[in-house]
Amino acid sequence: MKRKTLTSFYTLVILCISCIASGQPPTGPLARSPQVNPDKTVTFRYIAPSAKSVTLSAQFEKGPLAMTKDASGTWSVTTGPVKPDIYPYNFIVDGIQVMDPGNVDFFPNERFKASIVDIPGDTPLIHSLKDVPHGTVTYEYYPSVEGTTGSLVVYTPPDYEKNATKKYPVFYLISGTTDTEETWFKVGRANFILDNLISEGKARPMIIVMPYGNVEGTIAAQKGLPKPAAPAGREGTEAVQRANSFEDDLVNNIIPYIEKNYRVISNSDNRAVGGFSRGGGQTLRAGFGNMDKFSWICCYSAYLTNKEMESSYKHVYENPGRTNSQLKLLWVSVGNEDFLYKQTVEFMDFLKSKNVNYKSFITTGGHTWMNTKVFLTETAQLLFK
Amino acid sequence: MKRKTLTSFYTLVILCISCIASGQPPTGPLARSPQVNPDKTVTFRYIAPSAKSVTLSAQFEKGPLAMTKDASGTWSVTTGPVKPDIYPYNFIVDGIQVMDPGNVDFFPNERFKASIVDIPGDTPLIHSLKDVPHGTVTYEYYPSVEGTTGSLVVYTPPDYEKNATKKYPVFYLISGTTDTEETWFKVGRANFILDNLISEGKARPMIIVMPYGNVEGTIAAQKGLPKPAAPAGREGTEAVQRANSFEDDLVNNIIPYIEKNYRVISNSDNRAVGGFSRGGGQTLRAGFGNMDKFSWICCYSAYLTNKEMESSYKHVYENPGRTNSQLKLLWVSVGNEDFLYKQTVEFMDFLKSKNVNYKSFITTGGHTWMNTKVFLTETAQLLFK
Repeated sequence: MKRKTLTSFYTLVILCISCIASGQPPTGPLARSPQVNPDKTVTFRYIAPSAKSVTLSAQFEKGPLAMTKDASGTWSVTTGPVKPDIYPYNFIVDGIQVMDPGNVDFFPNERFKASIVDIPGDTPLIHSLKDVPHGTVTYEYYPSVEGTTGSLVVYTPPDYEKNATKKYPVFYLISGTTDTEETWFKVGRANFILDNLISEGKARPMIIVMPYGNVEGTIAAQKGLPKPAAPAGREGTEAVQRANSFEDDLVNNIIPYIEKNYRVISNSDNRAVGGFSRGGGQTLRAGFGNMDKFSWICCYSAYLTNKEMESSYKHVYENPGRTNSQLKLLWVSVGNEDFLYKQTVEFMDFLKSKNVNYKSFITTGGHTWMNTKVFLTETAQLLFK
Repeated sequence: MKRKTLTSFYTLVILCISCIASGQPPTGPLARSPQVNPDKTVTFRYIAPSAKSVTLSAQFEKGPLAMTKDASGTWSVTTGPVKPDIYPYNFIVDGIQVMDPGNVDFFPNERFKASIVDIPGDTPLIHSLKDVPHGTVTYEYYPSVEGTTGSLVVYTPPDYEKNATKKYPVFYLISGTTDTEETWFKVGRANFILDNLISEGKARPMIIVMPYGNVEGTIAAQKGLPKPAAPAGREGTEAVQRANSFEDDLVNNIIPYIEKNYRVISNSDNRAVGGFSRGGGQTLRAGFGNMDKFSWICCYSAYLTNKEMESSYKHVYENPGRTNSQLKLLWVSVGNEDFLYKQTVEFMDFLKSKNVNYKSFITTGGHTWMNTKVFLTETAQLLFK
């Protein structure tokens, strides 16, 4: 396909239609991409006969990787072997970021568009689709703040439908800045991780509720207003206000909706909150702000400052014995290359200095969804036990 | 944001991280796009200071629409007023098709990447999110052909969870060539259409099961093989074989899975099959091939040739009285600008010549998801009554 001659989607549709009618595939040749080879190298291809430069940018590479064009106009590169995992990537075509056209797996996000590639292990990884009983993932619509309708993604474990009376604990699990309610499902593979852990007897069957952390974004979208920019920083007044409005939605709307519509054990011992990055900050604030509601708090790649702890959450540490008996788990994890590593360790040190029990987990790597999956895998084995 | 200087996703991530850490939003300025204005004009924006040409291609336009660059490097165009509906669109940036970076609404498809824009009516349209009881949309994993795991999207009506013993009829609803199991949900809005029709008392509460019509694609993906090209044409041997393999999966795997895991009325009077484009061909073949299983057949923008009817489905018309009493509905609809209009009308004429009852619905417009939503809206009001 000569992409330069396809100057519009309209033209593309017309071409699709005429090729379908004439017995051709809808959009002409489609590159096989990504192609994961048996030796764990991966071949990426992009058809662009008229492009001057195409590079691959993938989270397993240290920088952009040049691709080369063959006689037919297909650009390609083979790289690796790559450590088995799920990685975001896209192509930079003459300076323009594009997803891989023929790859349906994508990274749900408010601000960038990336495809994802799944490099399987020699034995299946914990986030892989395996031949085990599968839970289901459900999109729910609930009455949220200011008359808006919020959306949630909800995982129910494999035996949920089969036990018409059994009740389950619930893990409220929040994604990061600019992620959506779909990111824990599509990129974090929370459903497959739990399916696999449950089938191995390593995690208790639980419901996982994945909200959209950006309440102000929902309000703006549904009222036709400009979407507000992300708060300026993780520590400022605006970040706290935004976290508080999410906390209100969680406590006043999301939890009641779930407890009305799912078979849930409605007490703090069976209610956990966790999240990554911005969702980790929301987790700490919602958890510390509602010690009567959550006995399990899982903070992934996030922190609160000493200042915010002192101004807002003194009750957490002024009587550490009480906190240590209220909380079954206070988990804090981070990668040692994470740009929030230093702040997260300072937060751990603060808790330690105040004799608040917490479980620390420090791994390699950065502020990535590769690490986020590891954190979920670890904590899911601890929850509700 | 100077996009030309962002030469890799990796760089982008690094920048995101550093701007998050420094209190900036993750990827610098984000254009407000699409912005639907009160007069139904729509403003599209794309930030690309170094691009030479940016055009909008949208299914409501007859051709590509030039965008103009302001001093900050943001390209924009305002167009319309546009007839309220949901439309696919994308940008062509120096000849490269890209989705709208900040729009999370997208068109799930195997071969192209497009965003979607929802232009609301002065009164909400039938596919709009309204303040009515909402059903849920569930992603299911089922044992499919050749040891693979298939995926389904399943709509259950608003009262499904509240009636722990009530059983429901089921509509198996298939998307088009290169669409995925998500397309009826994300673009066709089958869930909101049914929520709204049910709340108005116009449709019976029903379960809708949305499969991925490309069984060979699932096999290839899960076995690490190249994805086969779409069949050469809608009428040839390969198209029939591919439709047959889907029919086998539907009858032998999907229906049993649904009837085991959902509260379903398991008889032909409470089982419908429908689909758009390739899914319409699959619908006719699965329906005519299993007259004991489906009493309701809904064909949207598709047909079978006289030749295929004669060679494979003679039983449908050799005793039309029997067929007319077996089928509660045989629906055939198409737009008068659809590239399959002529063939679809020929199919209707064939049925007519054989005295097989069918309900014909011809509307304006082409082979689009705008029409597909209309067809679902019409047929959902007829089913199971």
